[in-house]
Amino acid sequence: MIYRYDFGHPIDTSAVIRQLPAEQGELPRFAVRREGEKLSFSCELGKDDFIFGLGETVRGINKRGHLYRAWNSDDFSHTEDKNSLYASHNLLLFSGEGGVFGAYFDDPGEVLFDLGYTEMNRAVITSVNGDLSVYLIEGDSLVEMCREFRGLTGRSYAPPKWGLGYIQSRWGYASEDDIRAIVREHRERHIPLDGMSMDIDYMDDFKDFTWNRDAFPDLPGLAADLKADHIRLVPIIDAGVKQQKGYDVCDEGVENDFFVKKADGSLFVGAVWPGRSYFPDFLRADARLWFGRQYRKLLDAGIEGYWNDMNEPALFYTPETLEAAYAKAEALREKNIGIHEFFALKDAFGTIANNPEDYRRFYHEIDGKMVRHDKVHNLYGAMMTRAAAEGFAEYDPEKRFLLFSRASYIGAHRYGGVWQGDNNSWWGHLLMNLKMMPSLNMCGFLYCGADLGGFGCHTTGDLLLRWLQLGVFTPLMRNHAAQGTRDQEAYRFENWPEMRRVLTVRYALLPYLYSTLMKAVLTDGMMFRPLAFDYPADDTACRTEDQVMLGDEAMIAPVYEQNARGRHVYLPEDMLLVRFRSASDYDLVPMTKGHHWVELGLHEFPLFIRRGHVVPLAKEAEWVEAVDSADLNLLGWLDGSIEASLYDDDGVSTAIDLDAGLKAITVTLRDGKATASGEGLTLHTNDLVIS
Amino acid sequence: MIYRYDFGHPIDTSAVIRQLPAEQGELPRFAVRREGEKLSFSCELGKDDFIFGLGETVRGINKRGHLYRAWNSDDFSHTEDKNSLYASHNLLLFSGEGGVFGAYFDDPGEVLFDLGYTEMNRAVITSVNGDLSVYLIEGDSLVEMCREFRGLTGRSYAPPKWGLGYIQSRWGYASEDDIRAIVREHRERHIPLDGMSMDIDYMDDFKDFTWNRDAFPDLPGLAADLKADHIRLVPIIDAGVKQQKGYDVCDEGVENDFFVKKADGSLFVGAVWPGRSYFPDFLRADARLWFGRQYRKLLDAGIEGYWNDMNEPALFYTPETLEAAYAKAEALREKNIGIHEFFALKDAFGTIANNPEDYRRFYHEIDGKMVRHDKVHNLYGAMMTRAAAEGFAEYDPEKRFLLFSRASYIGAHRYGGVWQGDNNSWWGHLLMNLKMMPSLNMCGFLYCGADLGGFGCHTTGDLLLRWLQLGVFTPLMRNHAAQGTRDQEAYRFENWPEMRRVLTVRYALLPYLYSTLMKAVLTDGMMFRPLAFDYPADDTACRTEDQVMLGDEAMIAPVYEQNARGRHVYLPEDMLLVRFRSASDYDLVPMTKGHHWVELGLHEFPLFIRRGHVVPLAKEAEWVEAVDSADLNLLGWLDGSIEASLYDDDGVSTAIDLDAGLKAITVTLRDGKATASGEGLTLHTNDLVIS
Repeated sequence: MIYRYDFGHPIDTSAVIRQLPAEQGELPRFAVRREGEKLSFSCELGKDDFIFGLGETVRGINKRGHLYRAWNSDDFSHTEDKNSLYASHNLLLFSGEGGVFGAYFDDPGEVLFDLGYTEMNRAVITSVNGDLSVYLIEGDSLVEMCREFRGLTGRSYAPPKWGLGYIQSRWGYASEDDIRAIVREHRERHIPLDGMSMDIDYMDDFKDFTWNRDAFPDLPGLAADLKADHIRLVPIIDAGVKQQKGYDVCDEGVENDFFVKKADGSLFVGAVWPGRSYFPDFLRADARLWFGRQYRKLLDAGIEGYWNDMNEPALFYTPETLEAAYAKAEALREKNIGIHEFFALKDAFGTIANNPEDYRRFYHEIDGKMVRHDKVHNLYGAMMTRAAAEGFAEYDPEKRFLLFSRASYIGAHRYGGVWQGDNNSWWGHLLMNLKMMPSLNMCGFLYCGADLGGFGCHTTGDLLLRWLQLGVFTPLMRNHAAQGTRDQEAYRFENWPEMRRVLTVRYALLPYLYSTLMKAVLTDGMMFRPLAFDYPADDTACRTEDQVMLGDEAMIAPVYEQNARGRHVYLPEDMLLVRFRSASDYDLVPMTKGHHWVELGLHEFPLFIRRGHVVPLAKEAEWVEAVDSADLNLLGWLDGSIEASLYDDDGVSTAIDLDAGLKAITVTLRDGKATASGEGLTLHTNDLVIS
Repeated sequence: MIYRYDFGHPIDTSAVIRQLPAEQGELPRFAVRREGEKLSFSCELGKDDFIFGLGETVRGINKRGHLYRAWNSDDFSHTEDKNSLYASHNLLLFSGEGGVFGAYFDDPGEVLFDLGYTEMNRAVITSVNGDLSVYLIEGDSLVEMCREFRGLTGRSYAPPKWGLGYIQSRWGYASEDDIRAIVREHRERHIPLDGMSMDIDYMDDFKDFTWNRDAFPDLPGLAADLKADHIRLVPIIDAGVKQQKGYDVCDEGVENDFFVKKADGSLFVGAVWPGRSYFPDFLRADARLWFGRQYRKLLDAGIEGYWNDMNEPALFYTPETLEAAYAKAEALREKNIGIHEFFALKDAFGTIANNPEDYRRFYHEIDGKMVRHDKVHNLYGAMMTRAAAEGFAEYDPEKRFLLFSRASYIGAHRYGGVWQGDNNSWWGHLLMNLKMMPSLNMCGFLYCGADLGGFGCHTTGDLLLRWLQLGVFTPLMRNHAAQGTRDQEAYRFENWPEMRRVLTVRYALLPYLYSTLMKAVLTDGMMFRPLAFDYPADDTACRTEDQVMLGDEAMIAPVYEQNARGRHVYLPEDMLLVRFRSASDYDLVPMTKGHHWVELGLHEFPLFIRRGHVVPLAKEAEWVEAVDSADLNLLGWLDGSIEASLYDDDGVSTAIDLDAGLKAITVTLRDGKATASGEGLTLHTNDLVIS
């Protein structure tokens, strides 16, 4: 059950889709304390209790032992001391001595989560503004509570099936020729590919909904050519709109009053990629509608997918912060400054970007009232995503479009997916990619993934290969890198044939992965779960942070250490190890419950299938539409007959339905031999291990 | 055997202590290529070959797969993409298909180590200046090559025994009262303590060899009081000397021409903690002698140990870089700048510190010639350490002083230890601490350790506890934290009693740890070794990066993950697990060769003792001098009689001798019962597991 408790004057964030009645009594489970505007909620923790949740943020699956902060931040250095990333997903699920319960803090402003950080055995959640709804979640299990919370917050975004294909990206693809050359390299080497994502380079002077007509003389033609080759273009859209007279988006926004303003009524100006820019007030329905319709300019050019960026919103500087830094420099220039003055000077320039003061300079209009941005900061990106999704729905309500965003808030999961932001080519970020998947799933974000190979810093052939081995399983599978870093397309590395073979597994698993994702969408379920969700009574499983359950059938456990040739794995039950080298080259090793060392050469990666379950494998394909979902080889370890199911649909239409899409699979064991049947399916059973 | 090959005009770095004849033929093992001044040495790598070495730097014990750079750097963010830390230890040891060999690149300028980074199966070492000696090391094993290299580079620094005690530190202890209060808290709670290290706060206006007479009215009195309580003060000394007329060190240095100069003969000025400063030319013997003698000012006050800092040298700014940034700001101020100009402006201030151009602005005098700093950059800290050590030897040649440095170069290991620099309160840095220990040992740095709990960022009670559990084994065991971070003394945390119990193990192990360290000093051995050194034929052991051999008897395997309650351990042979909670509370579990899961509660940590070996445990003590090294309990798992040995000495005199210090221990097994004897030792055998 979920109960709503209101404090102060909660702002409607549209995170939930059903209006629960506000409870009148005291909030159970927490001691509530007000200090000025701040409101804090504290509870004791058992010594070994777990805390799950918080979606996109740093550190472990068990969030215990750190101070987190809900404050969407454009900060590219995801080190473990950080308190925020790009999203605010304020869901906590407690599990331990006192049973399980959860709490969702629906507050679009700054919220602090001190989870056993100041005091090891106490959690203190602090709403800085004190205006929020707390949804208390009671239930018997983590899985059940999570499903109920997801029911309250609404069905997750369903991507088009092609969005599960491999997408190549880079900040730096400067022209049509670049794009075509990279596509060609993939196709010629038979490296599967379904999408080319375009970073800010494609735009005309970084202006939203434009493209550089010199570098991309015929974008519709390019999009059509690529689509004929089964590849989609996926351009970026930024939150800021260039301040430039004659630029239609700017002019329209100014004319119709769609941009955020300062207290004195003047337009707020912040500099981002296009230089000085205005920011649409995505919190207003009319501004959202207007912005969402802008996507048509590219939809009409044949674009079917987008990524929304810089929507925390990121601010490189404002005229005010820049001027303050200039003034500081001028004042100190004539002095023989001391060391403290020097650091203050450095800070004046070093803290120009995303400065807290700037987020207090502008206002949104909510129900006719002006609300200062910092009170609703964490909603901004979510409402940009909503604007796009509403625009697509108006453009073609029958069709699914690809959409994923950097910033988000719970509620945005209904409109699009997310990528995990500007990570780095660090082995530690491969592991963080894994750990974030179930946490994102809890909060409803199912279509997600990280920049494979790492966005910042220089990757290496072995890191990219290992990261692709994890990316095989994440719905969004995109290789993306920053300007100035080493070329990162798979074929740039001498071990690209091994990368190609890894990608064949992605496409062979596509029927299974799509089915698993869509089942999660249609049942308010999770595609990825912490082991703690499935084996709550097994403390070792609960504390295992480098393995994750995939669907109801499987577990993944990537190698995330350089120069490793294997890893330790804990099996919470008997499982079949599939040691993949490619879609057609793998070992099957039945393994019993317990601790194991699994040998995994650099070109090998594991999938563990729970005993008594099957995972179907299709034939190799180089793009999603070429995957034959009807001709499947079943992998598994069985000791009896089983019933399984697979979801499928046309992959593009918005009319999705669980019952219509589910196909039953029956595997019958007789005299030690398996036969399998499923309506409209050709099923092979040679790779079923029987014992 | 070691062979020397010269290229260009090598500068004498005094890294080696014996002059080998220069070989006349071509350098074997490497293809040598000159490109302008640059000289590169490349060799092919087998797919699975290992590369060890490089001492203090980031990433794994196996250095394969990254680009490293010899360039001593003051950079506090030790993320895995970094190429340099504070030291340059240019030793590589290759092991793989083609057997083993090593190479030491004795070049005090910039050297790049591309170890399978650009091409996965090729190592390319590039000397930027092209003037160096390459020492090729041939041998039959990693251990043997390492010992031979250490013989060439000279006996490692031996600290006083008290330097193995627990040291408490913080940037921020501002007064005698602060120091006394912290000491009192430790003594009252019986938290062992042997040293209080003092950061820059103690100085008068950050001037070397001074102290603030208001905050420390009677430093000699404080030092004497603490020493009576068995605690030493360990002050910091920085490389830069404040530019201030009337400050004797500055005046003397100017008068005698001991500071580095620019090309035009004027004194080079760089700003560090004291503001604008001069930099002693430590590469000159006369300047070293002069600087070394300055330590007397504190030695006379009763100080017996120091840490040398900021000696890369770090440069916060120079008047030139600062002026360039000011000018940039002024030029842009009146323009409506574009985004690229904005980033250039930010960079102008962001890259002021440790700017490469500044390292080309000043010169050292070597053999009467002016040598630009960047050609010998990596020697600077090493020569500061040498200056101090030579000063101590002159002051009291019979006595060992404590000395450790931030910057170093091979050769400095003869004069002092190192700490691992300004790490962070990151779990990943606990693991990095472990990995760096054997790499530092290879290069001769035996007295070393990291800032326990982490220097930057805020620590937590569990991180500090786990880190202390590793620190138990590192010769330098110091808890140190930066200004502005959470108070980090053990007693600040609610779980301090568990920290206290961990520290009792340190002191109980002290006879063993001191013996192990001094044996390594006196035999050119390593206290910590990668498993690859001891089990070269065991590929799993060779690839194990989170466990390290300790002496000839043991292996350590700390827990380095938050919320973990155990870890996987690979035993390359049968070992006895000692699961420590305190010096008097532990489990003994014989474990067979292979993979294991070991349960380790937050308050528990393991030591693994090789079967057939013993590790002695003394009684609890609160300071080093109180440890009774003659009354020892033997821990081990034996199936027959054995001979062991323990080194000891008075802990302070410089006259150290292996034969004089070694005591034989005989454990005799008869009828399943053990008896033990050793000259002058009372030995207990109740905790020997016999089977």
